[in-house]
Amino acid sequence: MAKKTWKPPLYVGIDLGGTLIKAGLVDDTGQPLLEEAVSVPTEAARGADIALENMARAAEEAVRRAGVTWDDVRAVGLGSPGTMDIPAGMLLDPVNLKGPGWQNFPIRDRLAERLNKKVAFQNDANAAAYAEYWVGVGRDVHSLVLFTLGTGIGCGIVVEDMIIEGRHSHGAECGHIVICMRQEGYPLPRRCGCGRYGCLEAYASATALEKRAQEGLDAGVQTRLREVWDSTPEEDKARVIDELAKGGDEFCHRLMRETAYYLAVGATNLMHTIDPDIVVFTGGMTRSGPEFLEWIRADIRKLAFPTPAENTAVVYGILGTNAGYIGAAGWARRQCEHGLL
Amino acid sequence: MAKKTWKPPLYVGIDLGGTLIKAGLVDDTGQPLLEEAVSVPTEAARGADIALENMARAAEEAVRRAGVTWDDVRAVGLGSPGTMDIPAGMLLDPVNLKGPGWQNFPIRDRLAERLNKKVAFQNDANAAAYAEYWVGVGRDVHSLVLFTLGTGIGCGIVVEDMIIEGRHSHGAECGHIVICMRQEGYPLPRRCGCGRYGCLEAYASATALEKRAQEGLDAGVQTRLREVWDSTPEEDKARVIDELAKGGDEFCHRLMRETAYYLAVGATNLMHTIDPDIVVFTGGMTRSGPEFLEWIRADIRKLAFPTPAENTAVVYGILGTNAGYIGAAGWARRQCEHGLL
Repeated sequence: MAKKTWKPPLYVGIDLGGTLIKAGLVDDTGQPLLEEAVSVPTEAARGADIALENMARAAEEAVRRAGVTWDDVRAVGLGSPGTMDIPAGMLLDPVNLKGPGWQNFPIRDRLAERLNKKVAFQNDANAAAYAEYWVGVGRDVHSLVLFTLGTGIGCGIVVEDMIIEGRHSHGAECGHIVICMRQEGYPLPRRCGCGRYGCLEAYASATALEKRAQEGLDAGVQTRLREVWDSTPEEDKARVIDELAKGGDEFCHRLMRETAYYLAVGATNLMHTIDPDIVVFTGGMTRSGPEFLEWIRADIRKLAFPTPAENTAVVYGILGTNAGYIGAAGWARRQCEHGLL
Repeated sequence: MAKKTWKPPLYVGIDLGGTLIKAGLVDDTGQPLLEEAVSVPTEAARGADIALENMARAAEEAVRRAGVTWDDVRAVGLGSPGTMDIPAGMLLDPVNLKGPGWQNFPIRDRLAERLNKKVAFQNDANAAAYAEYWVGVGRDVHSLVLFTLGTGIGCGIVVEDMIIEGRHSHGAECGHIVICMRQEGYPLPRRCGCGRYGCLEAYASATALEKRAQEGLDAGVQTRLREVWDSTPEEDKARVIDELAKGGDEFCHRLMRETAYYLAVGATNLMHTIDPDIVVFTGGMTRSGPEFLEWIRADIRKLAFPTPAENTAVVYGILGTNAGYIGAAGWARRQCEHGLL
């Protein structure tokens, strides 16, 4: 179902996830050609070669559904999770992609060869940030910091059309800034999934929220959460906490309120480092809605210097789960425009 | 005493400090023309107009001593402390410049008018970072983060020849990233000079070091520091702690070792945000020497992700107190080259 009008050239964007691959097309203005992106299973466990074929087929299906041809496509963008070498187009040791062939996988060049197109490669959270910067809530701003709130916390930073990808592809790994350092005489900070202590992610991710809930339950706190906890599937636990909080459960309310505070600390640290126009939150936790965002904003106003506190927009993203593929496509466009692809 | 050879055009750099103004000239390659920069009292308390005249005279004296003429000078760079609006060239409410006329002072245009030259304006720590990036220890790197360790902690970030000055001129205010957030059930974090809690500066600045020493003394800890503390002038206290630490005093050693740890936490947070080639420490505390730097490095290796931990250079600056004026001059050059001045 192609849009009636689009402005050439076109770009294919692919968002590689641990479970699903999303692929879609955007035109030169960032307008998606498909109402809904193509979505196929990654099949990561079957190996990198099979997943690569799945990516290529998703891209081909997107082109087919859009009713255009590959000749209309100038380049492909690929966003991926995992430790990587962005300039080399390599996945190094991706935590969320386990199976044969994923280590030191030259994913960019392999995909370029398979599709016979130039491919721009980028970290998935960086791509999402670029999407919101290019055509999303950060359209027309000078600089943007984005946090993706899920089982982990991803981050992307864009300043003047440049992604801060870092010298070692570790730029914007802000889920792992320390907001509670280890100190003698203090209780040990929370341990992060990365093995370190006191990271933002160890406090504010959905995983951390569930862990904090479990601790309260174990400590015998009074809460309606107890009645439903064991029967709630892992992936719904954060949502159930949020619902009970809205229903007036004091313990769940405190858990959500504290999560907002932790995110405000993380956002403030970025405001005192990057000082962007806009801080964007996306991902599952943002489904909590406007009150959660207001809590984050209120805490930022207390934590940050007056000028950024008053002038930095703190908002939810508007591109949802499409940000990954749109940003990857947009990054491919940007690299073409700069003669870098 | 001019260098025998220099490459035109020339740039005048001015480093405005709370106590002293430094001015000097560099050529197009960043080579200083004077062995020693001109240094004059700021006289901030006498007001912004008088200090401005002092800046202008320092610049004129530098040109005179270099044996060149103002026709050889393409532009002037000015680095300044204080809250500011960098694009507008305004000082807003500079903490370290107290006296009549400093608030909302259009310092850039006033200086340009007085000297009849184009003036580039920048934050002083940003200018120091740009100096180390341009012609100092970070020469030829892609990106650099610099911390200035003094009574406060300043910071500057340069990525691909761009200073991260922020949308509201609050970029790289990393002395005020929170490394110890407020949490229920925890002791209150240290209060910072900025009025907030848990900032890096509240732990790792010279002021914080002295405060922590005072607390130990008040608590009756055994240390030789007690014998000299009251008779040591404020500005020498950090140095005395360092000397006693080197002499084997256990308490002073612990104070210095902890300071290194706090700085490593701050550096790691920047490595997980900017991921630069190089992290540079400058300022008074670096006089402690190589062992202090080794402590910082050792803690960073424990705190950061393996790839940046192994590959990021962590070093002292090499330009010392000249970094301010050299960076200001370099920034003027950069802005001219980009057609922005």
